[in-house]
Amino acid sequence: MKTAKKIEHLCIIGVGLIGGSFARAIRQAGLVNHITGCGRNIDNLQTALSLGVIDDYSQDVKQAVKDADVIFIATPVGSFQSVLSQLKDAIKKDAIITDGGSTKSSVIEAAEAVFNEVPENFVPGHPIAGTENSGVEASFATLYHEHRVILTPLKQTNPEAIDMVTRLWESAGAQVITMDAHHHDLVLAATSHLPHLLAFSLVNTLTTLDEKQEIFENAAGGFRDFTRIASSDPSMWQDICLANKDALLEHLDHFSADLNQLRFALKQGDGDFLKEIFIRAKKSRDDFVARKFD
Amino acid sequence: MKTAKKIEHLCIIGVGLIGGSFARAIRQAGLVNHITGCGRNIDNLQTALSLGVIDDYSQDVKQAVKDADVIFIATPVGSFQSVLSQLKDAIKKDAIITDGGSTKSSVIEAAEAVFNEVPENFVPGHPIAGTENSGVEASFATLYHEHRVILTPLKQTNPEAIDMVTRLWESAGAQVITMDAHHHDLVLAATSHLPHLLAFSLVNTLTTLDEKQEIFENAAGGFRDFTRIASSDPSMWQDICLANKDALLEHLDHFSADLNQLRFALKQGDGDFLKEIFIRAKKSRDDFVARKFD
Repeated sequence: MKTAKKIEHLCIIGVGLIGGSFARAIRQAGLVNHITGCGRNIDNLQTALSLGVIDDYSQDVKQAVKDADVIFIATPVGSFQSVLSQLKDAIKKDAIITDGGSTKSSVIEAAEAVFNEVPENFVPGHPIAGTENSGVEASFATLYHEHRVILTPLKQTNPEAIDMVTRLWESAGAQVITMDAHHHDLVLAATSHLPHLLAFSLVNTLTTLDEKQEIFENAAGGFRDFTRIASSDPSMWQDICLANKDALLEHLDHFSADLNQLRFALKQGDGDFLKEIFIRAKKSRDDFVARKFD
Repeated sequence: MKTAKKIEHLCIIGVGLIGGSFARAIRQAGLVNHITGCGRNIDNLQTALSLGVIDDYSQDVKQAVKDADVIFIATPVGSFQSVLSQLKDAIKKDAIITDGGSTKSSVIEAAEAVFNEVPENFVPGHPIAGTENSGVEASFATLYHEHRVILTPLKQTNPEAIDMVTRLWESAGAQVITMDAHHHDLVLAATSHLPHLLAFSLVNTLTTLDEKQEIFENAAGGFRDFTRIASSDPSMWQDICLANKDALLEHLDHFSADLNQLRFALKQGDGDFLKEIFIRAKKSRDDFVARKFD
Protein backbone atom coordinates (compact mmCIF):
# COMPACT_ATOMS: atom_id res chain seq x y z
CA MET A 1 0.00 0.00 0.00
CA LYS A 2 1.49 3.31 -1.13
CA THR A 3 0.69 6.42 0.85
CA ALA A 4 -2.09 8.61 -0.44
CA LYS A 5 -1.36 12.21 -1.43
CA LYS A 6 -2.97 14.79 0.78
CA ILE A 7 -6.08 16.43 -0.69
CA GLU A 8 -6.51 20.14 -0.22
CA HIS A 9 -10.24 20.19 -0.64
CA LEU A 10 -12.69 17.28 -0.59
CA CYS A 11 -16.38 17.66 -1.39
CA ILE A 12 -18.91 15.08 -0.18
CA ILE A 13 -22.25 15.18 -1.96
CA GLY A 14 -24.68 13.31 0.27
CA VAL A 15 -23.34 13.36 3.82
CA GLY A 16 -25.07 10.24 5.15
CA LEU A 17 -23.77 6.90 6.41
CA ILE A 18 -21.56 6.30 3.35
CA GLY A 19 -20.44 9.87 2.63
CA GLY A 20 -20.04 10.76 6.29
CA SER A 21 -18.00 7.65 7.04
CA PHE A 22 -15.74 8.35 4.04
CA ALA A 23 -15.17 11.93 5.25
CA ARG A 24 -14.41 10.75 8.79
CA ALA A 25 -11.97 8.09 7.57
CA ILE A 26 -10.07 10.41 5.22
CA ARG A 27 -9.83 13.07 7.89
CA GLN A 28 -8.69 10.54 10.49
CA ALA A 29 -5.98 9.40 8.07
CA GLY A 30 -4.81 13.02 7.95
CA LEU A 31 -5.27 13.18 4.20
CA VAL A 32 -7.47 16.24 3.79
CA ASN A 33 -7.33 19.89 4.72
CA HIS A 34 -10.88 20.93 4.10
CA ILE A 35 -14.18 19.06 3.62
CA THR A 36 -17.26 20.67 2.14
CA GLY A 37 -20.59 18.91 2.50
CA CYS A 38 -23.50 19.15 0.11
CA GLY A 39 -27.03 17.80 0.36
CA ARG A 40 -30.70 18.62 0.35
CA ASN A 41 -31.38 18.15 4.04
CA ILE A 42 -30.20 21.23 5.94
CA ASP A 43 -30.63 19.59 9.37
CA ASN A 44 -28.38 16.72 8.33
CA LEU A 45 -25.73 19.16 7.06
CA GLN A 46 -25.90 21.11 10.32
CA THR A 47 -25.46 17.88 12.24
CA ALA A 48 -22.50 16.92 10.02
CA LEU A 49 -20.94 20.30 10.72
CA SER A 50 -21.47 20.10 14.47
CA LEU A 51 -20.05 16.56 14.52
CA GLY A 52 -16.95 17.86 12.74
CA VAL A 53 -17.52 15.53 9.80
CA ILE A 54 -17.43 18.50 7.41
CA ASP A 55 -15.92 21.98 7.68
CA ASP A 56 -18.61 23.84 5.80
CA TYR A 57 -21.50 23.11 3.52
CA SER A 58 -23.64 24.37 0.71
CA GLN A 59 -26.96 23.09 -0.51
CA ASP A 60 -26.01 24.24 -3.97
CA VAL A 61 -23.97 21.62 -5.85
CA LYS A 62 -22.21 24.21 -8.07
CA GLN A 63 -21.12 26.17 -5.04
CA ALA A 64 -20.05 23.08 -3.09
CA VAL A 65 -17.85 21.58 -5.81
CA LYS A 66 -16.20 24.67 -7.29
CA ASP A 67 -12.94 24.49 -5.30
CA ALA A 68 -12.86 20.74 -4.76
CA ASP A 69 -9.94 18.56 -5.83
CA VAL A 70 -11.84 15.35 -5.14
CA ILE A 71 -15.62 14.96 -5.22
CA PHE A 72 -17.29 11.95 -3.62
CA ILE A 73 -20.92 11.40 -4.61
CA ALA A 74 -22.82 9.40 -2.02
CA THR A 75 -26.42 10.22 -2.82
CA PRO A 76 -29.03 7.59 -3.78
CA VAL A 77 -28.24 6.27 -7.26
CA GLY A 78 -31.50 7.64 -8.69
CA SER A 79 -30.20 11.19 -8.19
CA PHE A 80 -26.89 10.80 -10.06
CA GLN A 81 -27.96 12.29 -13.37
CA SER A 82 -29.26 15.37 -11.61
CA VAL A 83 -26.16 15.71 -9.43
CA LEU A 84 -23.76 15.26 -12.35
CA SER A 85 -25.70 17.81 -14.45
CA GLN A 86 -25.36 20.36 -11.69
CA LEU A 87 -21.65 19.85 -11.12
CA LYS A 88 -20.73 19.50 -14.81
CA ASP A 89 -19.73 23.09 -15.54
CA ALA A 90 -18.79 24.02 -11.99
CA ILE A 91 -15.86 21.70 -11.20
CA LYS A 92 -12.17 22.46 -11.52
CA LYS A 93 -10.52 21.10 -14.66
CA ASP A 94 -8.51 18.37 -12.93
CA ALA A 95 -11.01 17.49 -10.22
CA ILE A 96 -11.38 13.76 -9.60
CA ILE A 97 -14.91 12.45 -9.21
CA THR A 98 -15.76 9.17 -7.57
CA ASP A 99 -18.86 7.73 -5.94
CA GLY A 100 -20.27 5.16 -3.56
CA GLY A 101 -23.33 4.09 -5.54
CA SER A 102 -24.53 0.50 -5.05
CA THR A 103 -25.11 -0.02 -8.78
CA LYS A 104 -22.51 0.83 -11.37
CA SER A 105 -24.02 0.47 -14.87
CA SER A 106 -26.70 2.99 -13.97
CA VAL A 107 -24.09 5.42 -12.66
CA ILE A 108 -22.07 5.09 -15.85
CA GLU A 109 -25.21 5.61 -17.93
CA ALA A 110 -26.04 8.73 -15.92
CA ALA A 111 -22.51 10.08 -16.55
CA GLU A 112 -22.82 9.32 -20.27
CA ALA A 113 -26.16 11.09 -20.42
CA VAL A 114 -24.66 14.20 -18.85
CA PHE A 115 -21.11 14.25 -20.27
CA ASN A 116 -21.72 12.30 -23.48
CA GLU A 117 -18.80 10.11 -22.47
CA VAL A 118 -17.75 9.21 -18.92
CA PRO A 119 -15.05 11.80 -17.99
CA GLU A 120 -11.56 10.34 -17.68
CA ASN A 121 -11.31 11.66 -14.11
CA PHE A 122 -14.51 9.94 -12.99
CA VAL A 123 -13.79 6.65 -11.18
CA PRO A 124 -17.02 4.75 -10.44
CA GLY A 125 -16.81 2.87 -7.15
CA HIS A 126 -18.79 0.93 -4.58
CA PRO A 127 -17.75 0.24 -0.98
CA ILE A 128 -19.23 -3.10 0.14
CA ALA A 129 -20.04 -1.87 3.57
CA GLY A 130 -22.96 -0.37 5.37
CA THR A 131 -25.40 -0.83 8.16
CA GLU A 132 -29.18 -0.63 8.17
CA ASN A 133 -28.93 2.88 9.64
CA SER A 134 -28.93 6.13 7.68
CA GLY A 135 -27.83 9.72 8.12
CA VAL A 136 -24.60 11.31 9.25
CA GLU A 137 -25.20 10.36 12.91
CA ALA A 138 -24.85 6.73 11.83
CA SER A 139 -21.48 7.34 10.15
CA PHE A 140 -18.16 6.27 11.66
CA ALA A 141 -14.53 6.36 10.58
CA THR A 142 -13.97 2.59 10.63
CA LEU A 143 -16.99 1.61 8.53
CA TYR A 144 -14.74 0.60 5.63
CA HIS A 145 -12.08 -1.07 7.70
CA GLU A 146 -11.32 -4.51 6.20
CA HIS A 147 -14.20 -4.13 3.77
CA ARG A 148 -14.01 -4.38 0.03
CA VAL A 149 -14.34 -1.48 -2.38
CA ILE A 150 -15.06 -2.35 -5.98
CA LEU A 151 -13.96 0.20 -8.58
CA THR A 152 -15.38 -0.16 -12.09
CA PRO A 153 -13.17 2.11 -14.24
CA LEU A 154 -13.68 2.36 -18.01
CA LYS A 155 -11.15 2.15 -20.84
CA GLN A 156 -10.74 5.90 -20.86
CA THR A 157 -10.40 6.30 -17.11
CA ASN A 158 -7.21 8.11 -16.11
CA PRO A 159 -4.85 5.69 -14.29
CA GLU A 160 -3.75 8.48 -11.97
CA ALA A 161 -7.34 9.08 -10.94
CA ILE A 162 -7.80 5.35 -10.29
CA ASP A 163 -4.60 5.35 -8.27
CA MET A 164 -5.69 8.37 -6.22
CA VAL A 165 -9.11 6.91 -5.43
CA THR A 166 -7.55 3.52 -4.62
CA ARG A 167 -5.17 5.08 -2.12
CA LEU A 168 -7.93 7.05 -0.46
CA TRP A 169 -9.96 3.90 0.10
CA GLU A 170 -6.89 2.03 1.30
CA SER A 171 -6.20 4.79 3.78
CA ALA A 172 -9.75 4.19 5.06
CA GLY A 173 -8.73 0.59 5.70
CA ALA A 174 -10.47 -0.92 2.68
CA GLN A 175 -9.28 -3.52 0.21
CA VAL A 176 -9.75 -2.26 -3.35
CA ILE A 177 -10.46 -4.44 -6.36
CA THR A 178 -11.57 -3.53 -9.87
CA MET A 179 -14.28 -5.14 -11.93
CA ASP A 180 -16.33 -4.53 -15.02
CA ALA A 181 -19.47 -2.53 -14.15
CA HIS A 182 -21.91 -5.04 -15.61
CA HIS A 183 -20.24 -7.86 -13.74
CA HIS A 184 -20.32 -5.85 -10.53
CA ASP A 185 -24.05 -5.37 -10.91
CA LEU A 186 -24.67 -9.09 -11.42
CA VAL A 187 -22.58 -10.03 -8.40
CA LEU A 188 -24.15 -7.40 -6.16
CA ALA A 189 -27.67 -8.24 -7.32
CA ALA A 190 -27.06 -11.75 -5.96
CA THR A 191 -25.29 -10.92 -2.75
CA SER A 192 -27.04 -7.74 -1.70
CA HIS A 193 -29.96 -6.56 -3.83
CA LEU A 194 -31.89 -9.83 -3.93
CA PRO A 195 -31.50 -10.47 -0.18
CA HIS A 196 -32.81 -6.95 0.49
CA LEU A 197 -35.80 -7.52 -1.79
CA LEU A 198 -36.57 -10.85 -0.08
CA ALA A 199 -36.24 -9.41 3.40
CA PHE A 200 -38.51 -6.44 2.62
CA SER A 201 -40.97 -8.77 0.91
CA LEU A 202 -41.10 -11.30 3.74
CA VAL A 203 -41.66 -8.70 6.45
CA ASN A 204 -44.34 -7.06 4.31
CA THR A 205 -46.10 -10.41 3.84
CA LEU A 206 -46.07 -11.06 7.58
CA THR A 207 -47.71 -7.69 8.24
CA THR A 208 -50.65 -8.77 6.09
CA LEU A 209 -51.35 -12.01 8.00
CA ASP A 210 -54.11 -12.41 10.58
CA GLU A 211 -51.58 -13.60 13.15
CA LYS A 212 -49.45 -10.49 12.54
CA GLN A 213 -49.21 -9.41 16.17
CA GLU A 214 -48.36 -12.82 17.54
CA ILE A 215 -45.88 -13.41 14.75
CA PHE A 216 -43.79 -10.42 15.72
CA GLU A 217 -44.26 -11.11 19.45
CA ASN A 218 -42.89 -14.62 19.07
CA ALA A 219 -40.05 -13.90 16.71
CA ALA A 220 -36.52 -14.31 18.03
CA GLY A 221 -32.89 -13.70 17.12
CA GLY A 222 -32.94 -15.66 13.87
CA PHE A 223 -35.78 -13.52 12.59
CA ARG A 224 -34.11 -10.33 13.80
CA ASP A 225 -30.94 -11.11 11.85
CA PHE A 226 -32.73 -12.40 8.76
CA THR A 227 -34.75 -9.20 8.56
CA ARG A 228 -32.09 -6.70 9.62
CA ILE A 229 -31.71 -5.44 6.05
CA ALA A 230 -35.47 -4.81 5.90
CA SER A 231 -34.76 -1.84 8.21
CA SER A 232 -32.72 -0.20 5.43
CA ASP A 233 -33.72 3.09 3.82
CA PRO A 234 -36.72 2.51 1.50
CA SER A 235 -35.92 5.38 -0.92
CA MET A 236 -32.36 4.24 -1.36
CA TRP A 237 -33.48 0.68 -2.06
CA GLN A 238 -36.18 1.77 -4.44
CA ASP A 239 -33.41 3.48 -6.42
CA ILE A 240 -31.06 0.50 -6.29
CA CYS A 241 -33.73 -1.97 -7.39
CA LEU A 242 -34.75 0.18 -10.33
CA ALA A 243 -31.15 0.98 -11.27
CA ASN A 244 -30.17 -2.70 -11.29
CA LYS A 245 -33.49 -4.06 -12.51
CA ASP A 246 -32.19 -6.46 -15.16
CA ALA A 247 -29.61 -8.23 -13.03
CA LEU A 248 -32.01 -8.33 -10.08
CA LEU A 249 -34.81 -9.84 -12.17
CA GLU A 250 -32.41 -12.43 -13.55
CA HIS A 251 -31.40 -13.62 -10.08
CA LEU A 252 -34.92 -13.30 -8.70
CA ASP A 253 -36.24 -15.62 -11.40
CA HIS A 254 -33.48 -18.07 -10.72
CA PHE A 255 -34.29 -17.95 -7.00
CA SER A 256 -38.04 -18.33 -7.56
CA ALA A 257 -37.56 -21.36 -9.80
CA ASP A 258 -35.37 -23.04 -7.18
CA LEU A 259 -37.79 -22.12 -4.39
CA ASN A 260 -40.59 -23.64 -6.41
CA GLN A 261 -38.66 -26.90 -6.65
CA LEU A 262 -38.22 -26.83 -2.90
CA ARG A 263 -41.95 -26.18 -2.49
CA PHE A 264 -42.73 -29.18 -4.68
CA ALA A 265 -40.40 -31.40 -2.65
CA LEU A 266 -41.98 -30.16 0.58
CA LYS A 267 -45.49 -30.84 -0.70
CA GLN A 268 -44.44 -34.35 -1.74
CA GLY A 269 -42.80 -34.91 1.64
CA ASP A 270 -39.47 -35.49 -0.10
CA GLY A 271 -37.20 -35.05 2.92
CA ASP A 272 -34.10 -36.26 1.08
CA PHE A 273 -34.37 -33.45 -1.44
CA LEU A 274 -34.88 -30.84 1.30
CA LYS A 275 -31.92 -32.15 3.25
CA GLU A 276 -29.66 -32.16 0.20
CA ILE A 277 -30.44 -28.49 -0.44
CA PHE A 278 -30.04 -27.59 3.24
CA ILE A 279 -26.68 -29.39 3.46
CA ARG A 280 -25.34 -27.62 0.36
CA ALA A 281 -26.52 -24.24 1.62
CA LYS A 282 -25.10 -24.76 5.09
CA LYS A 283 -21.73 -25.76 3.68
CA SER A 284 -21.49 -22.71 1.42
CA ARG A 285 -22.62 -20.37 4.16
CA ASP A 286 -20.23 -21.89 6.75
CA ASP A 287 -17.35 -21.61 4.25
CA PHE A 288 -18.26 -18.00 3.50
CA VAL A 289 -18.26 -17.03 7.17
CA ALA A 290 -15.03 -18.89 7.86
CA ARG A 291 -13.26 -17.12 4.98
CA LYS A 292 -14.64 -13.65 5.52
CA PHE A 293 -15.18 -13.23 9.22
CA ASP A 294 -12.89 -15.56 11.10
CA MET B 1 -43.00 -16.07 39.62
CA LYS B 2 -43.39 -18.83 42.16
CA THR B 3 -40.35 -20.92 43.07
CA ALA B 4 -39.95 -24.23 41.30
CA LYS B 5 -39.88 -27.43 43.34
CA LYS B 6 -36.55 -29.22 43.30
CA ILE B 7 -36.40 -32.24 41.00
CA GLU B 8 -34.65 -35.33 42.26
CA HIS B 9 -33.87 -36.78 38.84
CA LEU B 10 -34.06 -35.08 35.44
CA CYS B 11 -33.56 -36.95 32.17
CA ILE B 12 -32.58 -35.11 29.00
CA ILE B 13 -33.16 -37.04 25.79
CA GLY B 14 -31.05 -35.31 23.13
CA VAL B 15 -28.26 -33.41 24.89
CA GLY B 16 -27.57 -30.78 22.21
CA LEU B 17 -27.94 -27.01 22.15
CA ILE B 18 -31.54 -27.07 23.44
CA GLY B 19 -31.33 -30.02 25.83
CA GLY B 20 -27.86 -29.09 27.09
CA SER B 21 -28.84 -25.48 27.73
CA PHE B 22 -31.95 -26.59 29.62
CA ALA B 23 -29.86 -28.92 31.79
CA ARG B 24 -27.31 -26.20 32.50
CA ALA B 25 -30.00 -23.66 33.38
CA ILE B 26 -31.91 -25.98 35.72
CA ARG B 27 -28.71 -27.01 37.44
CA GLN B 28 -27.57 -23.43 37.77
CA ALA B 29 -30.93 -22.59 39.37
CA GLY B 30 -30.17 -25.31 41.94
CA LEU B 31 -33.35 -27.17 41.06
CA VAL B 32 -32.06 -30.64 40.32
CA ASN B 33 -30.04 -33.28 42.12
CA HIS B 34 -29.19 -35.62 39.28
CA ILE B 35 -29.27 -35.32 35.48
CA THR B 36 -29.15 -38.31 33.16
CA GLY B 37 -28.43 -37.74 29.48
CA CYS B 38 -29.62 -39.91 26.63
CA GLY B 39 -28.79 -39.82 22.94
CA ARG B 40 -27.45 -41.76 19.99
CA ASN B 41 -24.07 -40.03 19.73
CA ILE B 42 -21.72 -41.44 22.36
CA ASP B 43 -19.07 -38.77 21.76
CA ASN B 44 -21.60 -36.04 22.42
CA LEU B 45 -22.73 -37.76 25.64
CA GLN B 46 -19.11 -38.09 26.77
CA THR B 47 -18.58 -34.40 26.08
CA ALA B 48 -21.76 -33.54 28.01
CA LEU B 49 -20.48 -35.60 30.93
CA SER B 50 -17.04 -34.03 30.91
CA LEU B 51 -18.58 -30.54 30.71
CA GLY B 52 -20.68 -31.36 33.77
CA VAL B 53 -23.91 -30.82 31.86
CA ILE B 54 -25.09 -34.32 32.87
CA ASP B 55 -24.15 -36.64 35.73
CA ASP B 56 -24.42 -39.89 33.81
CA TYR B 57 -25.85 -41.20 30.60
CA SER B 58 -27.31 -44.14 28.80
CA GLN B 59 -27.83 -44.67 25.10
CA ASP B 60 -30.85 -46.78 25.96
CA VAL B 61 -33.99 -44.70 26.42
CA LYS B 62 -35.66 -47.21 28.77
CA GLN B 63 -32.61 -47.24 30.99
CA ALA B 64 -32.20 -43.44 30.92
CA VAL B 65 -35.80 -42.60 31.89
CA LYS B 66 -36.58 -45.29 34.44
CA ASP B 67 -35.84 -43.24 37.58
CA ALA B 68 -36.59 -39.80 36.14
CA ASP B 69 -39.14 -37.48 37.70
CA VAL B 70 -39.01 -35.09 34.74
CA ILE B 71 -38.11 -36.05 31.17
CA PHE B 72 -37.18 -33.36 28.64
CA ILE B 73 -37.16 -34.52 25.01
CA ALA B 74 -34.93 -32.35 22.83
CA THR B 75 -34.32 -34.57 19.84
CA PRO B 76 -35.28 -33.60 16.25
CA VAL B 77 -39.06 -33.69 15.90
CA GLY B 78 -38.91 -36.52 13.36
CA SER B 79 -37.69 -38.87 16.09
CA PHE B 80 -40.47 -38.25 18.62
CA GLN B 81 -42.62 -41.25 17.82
CA SER B 82 -39.63 -43.55 18.21
CA VAL B 83 -38.49 -41.90 21.44
CA LEU B 84 -41.97 -41.96 22.98
CA SER B 85 -42.43 -45.64 22.02
CA GLN B 86 -39.21 -46.51 23.79
CA LEU B 87 -39.98 -44.63 26.98
CA LYS B 88 -43.68 -45.59 27.13
CA ASP B 89 -43.44 -48.60 29.44
CA ALA B 90 -40.24 -47.58 31.18
CA ILE B 91 -41.15 -44.33 32.94
CA LYS B 92 -42.29 -43.89 36.52
CA LYS B 93 -46.05 -43.52 36.97
CA ASP B 94 -45.97 -39.83 37.88
CA ALA B 95 -43.09 -38.76 35.65
CA ILE B 96 -43.67 -35.47 33.86
CA ILE B 97 -42.71 -35.37 30.19
CA THR B 98 -42.07 -32.17 28.28
CA ASP B 99 -40.19 -31.30 25.12
CA GLY B 100 -38.49 -28.56 23.10
CA GLY B 101 -39.70 -29.49 19.63
CA SER B 102 -40.11 -26.65 17.12
CA THR B 103 -43.43 -27.98 15.87
CA LYS B 104 -46.26 -28.93 18.17
CA SER B 105 -49.05 -30.60 16.18
CA SER B 106 -46.60 -33.24 14.95
CA VAL B 107 -45.39 -33.89 18.50
CA ILE B 108 -48.97 -34.28 19.71
CA GLU B 109 -49.73 -36.65 16.83
CA ALA B 110 -46.65 -38.69 17.69
CA ALA B 111 -47.82 -38.94 21.31
CA GLU B 112 -51.29 -39.96 20.20
CA ALA B 113 -49.86 -42.62 17.92
CA VAL B 114 -47.87 -44.09 20.81
CA PHE B 115 -50.18 -43.56 23.81
CA ASN B 116 -53.50 -43.47 21.96
CA GLU B 117 -54.20 -40.23 23.83
CA VAL B 118 -51.63 -37.64 24.90
CA PRO B 119 -50.75 -38.56 28.53
CA GLU B 120 -51.98 -36.05 31.10
CA ASN B 121 -48.43 -35.58 32.38
CA PHE B 122 -47.04 -34.70 28.95
CA VAL B 123 -46.72 -30.92 28.47
CA PRO B 124 -45.73 -30.06 24.88
CA GLY B 125 -43.47 -27.01 24.74
CA HIS B 126 -41.23 -24.95 22.52
CA PRO B 127 -38.55 -22.51 23.67
CA ILE B 128 -38.22 -19.69 21.12
CA ALA B 129 -34.49 -19.56 21.41
CA GLY B 130 -31.51 -21.02 19.66
CA THR B 131 -28.43 -20.26 17.68
CA GLU B 132 -27.23 -21.68 14.38
CA ASN B 133 -24.83 -23.94 16.30
CA SER B 134 -25.51 -27.50 17.37
CA GLY B 135 -24.27 -30.00 19.93
CA VAL B 136 -23.68 -29.82 23.67
CA GLU B 137 -20.54 -27.67 23.23
CA ALA B 138 -22.82 -24.93 21.87
CA SER B 139 -25.12 -25.06 24.91
CA PHE B 140 -25.10 -22.44 27.64
CA ALA B 141 -27.11 -21.76 30.79
CA THR B 142 -28.50 -18.38 29.71
CA LEU B 143 -29.80 -19.41 26.27
CA TYR B 144 -33.40 -19.05 27.48
CA HIS B 145 -32.89 -15.88 29.45
CA GLU B 146 -35.59 -13.36 28.47
CA HIS B 147 -36.79 -15.65 25.70
CA ARG B 148 -40.28 -16.96 25.23
CA VAL B 149 -41.38 -20.51 25.81
CA ILE B 150 -44.69 -21.54 24.29
CA LEU B 151 -46.49 -24.43 25.98
CA THR B 152 -49.32 -26.07 24.06
CA PRO B 153 -51.15 -28.17 26.68
CA LEU B 154 -54.30 -30.13 25.79
CA LYS B 155 -57.65 -30.32 27.56
CA GLN B 156 -56.56 -33.39 29.52
CA THR B 157 -53.15 -32.01 30.51
CA ASN B 158 -52.63 -32.09 34.28
CA PRO B 159 -52.52 -28.48 35.62
CA GLU B 160 -49.84 -29.51 38.11
CA ALA B 161 -47.64 -30.76 35.30
CA ILE B 162 -48.16 -27.48 33.41
CA ASP B 163 -47.30 -25.59 36.57
CA MET B 164 -44.15 -27.63 37.15
CA VAL B 165 -42.89 -27.18 33.58
CA THR B 166 -43.75 -23.47 33.67
CA ARG B 167 -41.72 -22.95 36.83
CA LEU B 168 -38.73 -24.82 35.42
CA TRP B 169 -38.68 -22.59 32.35
CA GLU B 170 -39.14 -19.50 34.49
CA SER B 171 -36.19 -20.57 36.61
CA ALA B 172 -34.21 -20.68 33.34
CA GLY B 173 -35.12 -17.03 32.84
CA ALA B 174 -37.80 -17.60 30.21
CA GLN B 175 -41.24 -16.05 29.84
CA VAL B 176 -43.87 -18.77 29.46
CA ILE B 177 -47.08 -18.43 27.47
CA THR B 178 -49.60 -21.03 26.38
CA MET B 179 -51.16 -21.40 22.96
CA ASP B 180 -53.12 -23.91 20.93
CA ALA B 181 -50.73 -26.25 19.08
CA HIS B 182 -52.16 -25.55 15.65
CA HIS B 183 -51.92 -21.84 16.23
CA HIS B 184 -48.33 -22.21 17.46
CA ASP B 185 -47.41 -24.00 14.25
CA LEU B 186 -48.93 -21.29 12.09
CA VAL B 187 -47.13 -18.51 13.98
CA LEU B 188 -43.79 -20.30 13.98
CA ALA B 189 -44.07 -21.23 10.32
CA ALA B 190 -44.19 -17.51 9.59
CA THR B 191 -41.57 -16.27 11.98
CA SER B 192 -39.05 -19.09 11.89
CA HIS B 193 -39.71 -21.96 9.48
CA LEU B 194 -40.33 -19.86 6.36
CA PRO B 195 -37.27 -17.61 6.97
CA HIS B 196 -35.12 -20.72 7.38
CA LEU B 197 -36.47 -22.19 4.14
CA LEU B 198 -35.81 -18.91 2.29
CA ALA B 199 -32.30 -18.56 3.68
CA PHE B 200 -31.36 -22.13 2.79
CA SER B 201 -32.92 -21.70 -0.64
CA LEU B 202 -31.18 -18.41 -1.42
CA VAL B 203 -27.72 -19.66 -0.45
CA ASN B 204 -28.31 -22.82 -2.46
CA THR B 205 -29.31 -20.77 -5.51
CA LEU B 206 -26.18 -18.64 -5.22
CA THR B 207 -23.99 -21.74 -5.17
CA THR B 208 -25.40 -22.69 -8.58
CA LEU B 209 -24.55 -19.38 -10.29
CA ASP B 210 -21.54 -18.88 -12.57
CA GLU B 211 -20.40 -15.96 -10.43
CA LYS B 212 -20.53 -18.16 -7.31
CA GLN B 213 -17.01 -17.49 -6.11
CA GLU B 214 -17.14 -13.73 -6.57
CA ILE B 215 -20.58 -13.60 -5.00
CA PHE B 216 -19.34 -15.03 -1.74
CA GLU B 217 -16.08 -13.04 -1.90
CA ASN B 218 -17.97 -9.78 -2.21
CA ALA B 219 -20.70 -10.44 0.29
CA ALA B 220 -20.71 -8.37 3.46
CA GLY B 221 -22.39 -8.07 6.84
CA GLY B 222 -25.94 -7.78 5.51
CA PHE B 223 -25.54 -11.07 3.69
CA ARG B 224 -23.90 -12.70 6.69
CA ASP B 225 -26.85 -11.82 8.93
CA PHE B 226 -29.52 -12.61 6.34
CA THR B 227 -28.06 -16.08 5.84
CA ARG B 228 -27.07 -16.86 9.44
CA ILE B 229 -29.97 -19.30 9.79
CA ALA B 230 -28.78 -21.15 6.67
CA SER B 231 -25.95 -22.45 8.87
CA SER B 232 -28.49 -24.34 10.99
CA ASP B 233 -28.56 -28.11 11.25
CA PRO B 234 -29.93 -29.61 7.98
CA SER B 235 -31.39 -32.78 9.56
CA MET B 236 -33.21 -30.81 12.21
CA TRP B 237 -34.69 -28.48 9.61
CA GLN B 238 -35.67 -31.29 7.31
CA ASP B 239 -37.69 -32.67 10.22
CA ILE B 240 -39.25 -29.31 11.10
CA CYS B 241 -40.27 -28.55 7.51
CA LEU B 242 -41.91 -31.95 7.07
CA ALA B 243 -43.52 -31.84 10.52
CA ASN B 244 -45.06 -28.43 9.83
CA LYS B 245 -45.62 -28.86 6.11
CA ASP B 246 -49.17 -27.53 5.89
CA ALA B 247 -48.59 -24.28 7.76
CA LEU B 248 -45.29 -23.74 6.00
CA LEU B 249 -46.83 -24.27 2.55
CA GLU B 250 -49.63 -21.87 3.42
CA HIS B 251 -47.20 -19.07 4.33
CA LEU B 252 -44.83 -19.91 1.50
CA ASP B 253 -47.61 -19.53 -1.05
CA HIS B 254 -48.64 -16.25 0.49
CA PHE B 255 -45.04 -15.06 0.36
CA SER B 256 -44.53 -16.19 -3.23
CA ALA B 257 -47.67 -14.42 -4.41
CA ASP B 258 -46.53 -11.18 -2.77
CA LEU B 259 -43.02 -11.58 -4.17
CA ASN B 260 -44.49 -12.07 -7.60
CA GLN B 261 -46.34 -8.78 -7.27
CA LEU B 262 -43.10 -7.11 -6.32
CA ARG B 263 -41.41 -8.71 -9.32
CA PHE B 264 -44.13 -7.35 -11.58
CA ALA B 265 -43.72 -3.85 -10.16
CA LEU B 266 -39.95 -4.07 -10.59
CA LYS B 267 -40.29 -5.20 -14.19
CA GLN B 268 -42.68 -2.32 -14.86
CA GLY B 269 -40.30 0.12 -13.16
CA ASP B 270 -43.07 0.97 -10.67
CA GLY B 271 -40.89 2.62 -8.02
CA ASP B 272 -43.86 3.88 -6.01
CA PHE B 273 -45.11 0.35 -5.44
CA LEU B 274 -41.65 -0.86 -4.41
CA LYS B 275 -41.21 2.03 -2.02
CA GLU B 276 -44.62 1.51 -0.44
CA ILE B 277 -43.76 -2.14 0.31
CA PHE B 278 -40.28 -1.22 1.58
CA ILE B 279 -41.67 1.50 3.87
CA ARG B 280 -44.27 -0.83 5.36
CA ALA B 281 -41.67 -3.57 5.90
CA LYS B 282 -39.16 -1.20 7.46
CA LYS B 283 -41.76 0.17 9.86
CA SER B 284 -42.84 -3.29 11.03
CA ARG B 285 -39.28 -4.47 11.39
CA ASP B 286 -38.17 -1.35 13.26
CA ASP B 287 -41.17 -1.67 15.61
CA PHE B 288 -40.39 -5.35 16.19
CA VAL B 289 -36.80 -4.63 17.13
CA ALA B 290 -37.74 -1.68 19.35
CA ARG B 291 -40.28 -3.80 21.25
CA LYS B 292 -38.26 -6.97 21.56
CA PHE B 293 -34.64 -5.96 21.81
CA ASP B 294 -34.39 -2.42 23.15
